[in-house]
Amino acid sequence: MTKYKLTIAYDGTHYGGWQVQLNSTSIQTLVQKALTTILRAETHAIGSGRTDAGVHAIGQTAHFTHPDLPDLWKLQYSLNALLPADIRITDIAPVHPKFHARFSATGKIYHYHLYLDHVMDPFRRPFCTHVLHPVDLALLDRAAQQFAGTHDYSSFANEAHASSSLCNSIRTIERIGLQEERGGVRLEFEGNGFLYKMVRNIVGTLLDVTRGKIECEKLPDILAAKDRRKAGSCAPPQGLFLVSVKYPFALLDGFSSRPLA
Amino acid sequence: MTKYKLTIAYDGTHYGGWQVQLNSTSIQTLVQKALTTILRAETHAIGSGRTDAGVHAIGQTAHFTHPDLPDLWKLQYSLNALLPADIRITDIAPVHPKFHARFSATGKIYHYHLYLDHVMDPFRRPFCTHVLHPVDLALLDRAAQQFAGTHDYSSFANEAHASSSLCNSIRTIERIGLQEERGGVRLEFEGNGFLYKMVRNIVGTLLDVTRGKIECEKLPDILAAKDRRKAGSCAPPQGLFLVSVKYPFALLDGFSSRPLA
Repeated sequence: MTKYKLTIAYDGTHYGGWQVQLNSTSIQTLVQKALTTILRAETHAIGSGRTDAGVHAIGQTAHFTHPDLPDLWKLQYSLNALLPADIRITDIAPVHPKFHARFSATGKIYHYHLYLDHVMDPFRRPFCTHVLHPVDLALLDRAAQQFAGTHDYSSFANEAHASSSLCNSIRTIERIGLQEERGGVRLEFEGNGFLYKMVRNIVGTLLDVTRGKIECEKLPDILAAKDRRKAGSCAPPQGLFLVSVKYPFALLDGFSSRPLA
Repeated sequence: MTKYKLTIAYDGTHYGGWQVQLNSTSIQTLVQKALTTILRAETHAIGSGRTDAGVHAIGQTAHFTHPDLPDLWKLQYSLNALLPADIRITDIAPVHPKFHARFSATGKIYHYHLYLDHVMDPFRRPFCTHVLHPVDLALLDRAAQQFAGTHDYSSFANEAHASSSLCNSIRTIERIGLQEERGGVRLEFEGNGFLYKMVRNIVGTLLDVTRGKIECEKLPDILAAKDRRKAGSCAPPQGLFLVSVKYPFALLDGFSSRPLA
């Protein structure tokens, strides 16, 4: 059996998120259905992690196994022909047998788009969050930097994670960037892993800081409290994009015989 | 009575075009309904021209008259609160009494977006045309330049115009630009006026040139034939954007007493 890595872009607007759900259509369901149809065998696609209902992805990843696929370009073409137009397979590549889309991931990049102009751009409406209060960008940046580094992010993780996961809540955000773009700004989060709803809870809290509901100086205390109730609100899903998932190079170099680090 | 100029951006995906239609919702209908509700008087919004079903606008313009509006910012805010989120009033300004959104227009800029990569970007899908054959950009540019200048564009005008308009089919396209953008290119058309479906018919013909169906060297003959049947196909609406409408500066300087040129 060979393992393959899928890279998937999707407009999450009309879906119940990545993961298979009982009461809404998930992206994973549709990708698995397309794989199963084309490969004529029940095929599972294991994602790098879930994205919530309404969250978008430019570079979600997943893996599946198959005895042998001679023409990956043709498979990509066929999958995209079967999938709805708001879900696109952007790449398929063979990977090392030990590759696992979720457990091998060493990092992720998320972007959160804030639209700050008073008149919303109708073309960006489903892909950003419209902020209606005036935002002090210097304050937003100063507040955002409080979240960089290695912390226990329990105050910014929703219950679903805490109860279902075996691992702890310590993560490292290597970089938080604030980038101006047409009509607003985007917050760029680069880290080794993110807890359930962590980015949206951080962004919601940052917005609470810019609207004066939370003091910037209180952020270290909120982190230290390890209590979700101490932090601010959760920002809406439509501003969030999973941009890319990082893996060790050795795992991506599919059929090489190089020993794993 | 004072005349006001509206600037309107819209995602045309879900509408039957700008102009009031019998059997589909038009943008004009919704703008007039919102104006009538807020101003508490039947108000007509006269557009710079129609855009077809599915065509988008960044800077469509229209005018309406009203005795006196003290707070244009508040009116803009109220209109945007009533209008669906895919139609936005981006500006309201008083203009000269002689201003007419259609007849005073001295030029228009249209952009047509062609997506050339084999995997469509799911976020740009409703805002560009996916070209599935390989495109020689040098040939596309060379062919496009054949359309610049002053010509009788009858070969590129659909019947609807020919029968309904009193004026001739001679127009000037001052500039046709070819601009690379992520995943493809856009064609930029800057001219003093455009006939019904003219931009889409030109783009469709250019695509026929890049797919080898029409020879680039035949384009002057096709223009000279003044026969719609000689030209190529009509490109789909979703790639087309009305970017801006130009007016003489004197007409825009609303309440000035400067004599008109």
